[in-house]
Amino acid sequence: GAAPAVVNAQAQVRWRLASSFPKSLDTLFGAAELMARKVSDMSGGKFQISVHAGGEIVPALQVVDAVQGGTVECVHTAPYYFFGKDETFALGCAIPFGLNSRQMSAWMVEGNGLKLMREFYRNYNIINFLGGNTGAQMGGWYRKEIKSTADIKGLKIRIGGFAGRVIERMGAVPQQIAGGEIYSALEKGTIDAAEWVGPYDDQKLGFNKVAPNYYYPSWWEGGAQVDFYVNTKAYDALSSENKAILEAACAVSHVDMQAKYDAKNPIALKQLVGSGTKLFRFPKDVMDAAFKESHAVYAEISAKNPNWKKVYEDLVIFRRDQNLWFRFAEAGFDDFMQAQKL
Amino acid sequence: GAAPAVVNAQAQVRWRLASSFPKSLDTLFGAAELMARKVSDMSGGKFQISVHAGGEIVPALQVVDAVQGGTVECVHTAPYYFFGKDETFALGCAIPFGLNSRQMSAWMVEGNGLKLMREFYRNYNIINFLGGNTGAQMGGWYRKEIKSTADIKGLKIRIGGFAGRVIERMGAVPQQIAGGEIYSALEKGTIDAAEWVGPYDDQKLGFNKVAPNYYYPSWWEGGAQVDFYVNTKAYDALSSENKAILEAACAVSHVDMQAKYDAKNPIALKQLVGSGTKLFRFPKDVMDAAFKESHAVYAEISAKNPNWKKVYEDLVIFRRDQNLWFRFAEAGFDDFMQAQKL
Repeated sequence: GAAPAVVNAQAQVRWRLASSFPKSLDTLFGAAELMARKVSDMSGGKFQISVHAGGEIVPALQVVDAVQGGTVECVHTAPYYFFGKDETFALGCAIPFGLNSRQMSAWMVEGNGLKLMREFYRNYNIINFLGGNTGAQMGGWYRKEIKSTADIKGLKIRIGGFAGRVIERMGAVPQQIAGGEIYSALEKGTIDAAEWVGPYDDQKLGFNKVAPNYYYPSWWEGGAQVDFYVNTKAYDALSSENKAILEAACAVSHVDMQAKYDAKNPIALKQLVGSGTKLFRFPKDVMDAAFKESHAVYAEISAKNPNWKKVYEDLVIFRRDQNLWFRFAEAGFDDFMQAQKL
Repeated sequence: GAAPAVVNAQAQVRWRLASSFPKSLDTLFGAAELMARKVSDMSGGKFQISVHAGGEIVPALQVVDAVQGGTVECVHTAPYYFFGKDETFALGCAIPFGLNSRQMSAWMVEGNGLKLMREFYRNYNIINFLGGNTGAQMGGWYRKEIKSTADIKGLKIRIGGFAGRVIERMGAVPQQIAGGEIYSALEKGTIDAAEWVGPYDDQKLGFNKVAPNYYYPSWWEGGAQVDFYVNTKAYDALSSENKAILEAACAVSHVDMQAKYDAKNPIALKQLVGSGTKLFRFPKDVMDAAFKESHAVYAEISAKNPNWKKVYEDLVIFRRDQNLWFRFAEAGFDDFMQAQKL
């Protein structure tokens, strides 16, 4: 009826969003800005979300506490940052040898992924929405070439937390170093290698100047999904129109981020190679060892963590079917195209 | 201010959408229903779009005329159906050896694709929005095996219009047959082969029962995008809120359709193979010949059609960069995963 519509029209909702990303990463940080802009556009300015970079309201890696406790109504983050709270967080983002970008979206939207993750997130007063994907990432920058698993032994590598557990079993010494400090550690030789995201983001940090060997693929991030986490009380207080608006605005960002990475990465890659970067595929024995150790880690976690086990088992079944299917039409088309002179 | 907001809140917009698809194709037809539902949810029911299957208001292949003339405010269709009006339509959907699904979205959203196609569509009073992608399709069902280009000669194949121009140059006899009549033509041997979409959609039509050989990939549809076309006058008459709502609802459908295809295709493929379907990759010489003839067709069109030339040249540059990049991290990850026992 007309009366409630008028009430909604006059209502004002003001939210704050804490991003885990710095403004300099326009792909990642920009997705939250785009989401907020779309929410404002769709609501005629009646639902406003102010977007804050990592550290502005809360430190980048404390955003889950902030949204859980209601300090902010929503955050934008890479869920695997929080695997220390519970490994299950990683399943909503990327695990070594997990799903690629399209498969992750399919598992979330049409498989059980979103349903299962939301069930898990309820313990944190969170409801989540897909908020972008980086696509398959690069495997990082190495001062020396990696010719076999022997070269992993003793390797001091800056690597995202969860993958560190795997590469540690291969003899590496994983390091936790914040983005701004990686370059100097790599330059001084305090570390031997560092992984970040892919050509576009990596180029900004200048790793190519101090470590010429650029490896692919990131077996630990075949398609890392970032999420919008919304405090459930704040969400429940929204009108049904605003709930739908928020969800659709997140979908706009989800499409946009992958498109940005796909469009920007090739240009950056060409520039990097043009200035001396050498590209290498990880040796087969390194990939095989990483695959084996990853699944040993998963077996350990499954034995101890029922939250993880429930979601992981569903992901594994979905992953098997996805790779069965993608090897035919998708890989058949892509393989051929990649072999052509275009 | 409050006054205009109240006016907008009371406004009612009612649109009709003509789909080119039958209700039986839930992936394709369902995307328009989802879009309309999201528009209604976001607007609190004040912007309503009724969705009509192909043939209900206008025949499936006359939807461009209908939206151009304002018979309906919007349509949902596969743009390449209309290459007979102007070949440029095909560039907004799929051309042989074009872009895969992710690359197509990247070209549209972050490259020049959407900008250039909107410029072209202005001649038809159309503004378009991404409305889903099928992903790489299968290459169709063949009564006999295709062992080389020699087996293409004289082959009577039901195939989407634009690809017919290419396969004709390879000696095949392309046939235009509506979806509902393909099965019986294939059963009787009136045709030797038929392509449709992929496992999930194909299974519904039962082709496997009359042609056991299922080929991949569809070199003519590496990632077919479907679009929402909106009449520009109807669009211009929307409030800025409703414009933003419409756009975001289309993005929701865009994400959803690819997810549906990705989740449903593997299950259908397993069932098809389980009931006797034989999978074959097109022989290399067939792919090479098709690639060569496709580019001969493109050269001919470029010489005659400046609309095509402008958009095609941009797509070609984007395609080159995309395939350069996708062969590293993406293919490196996917290849490895597809080779594992999962």
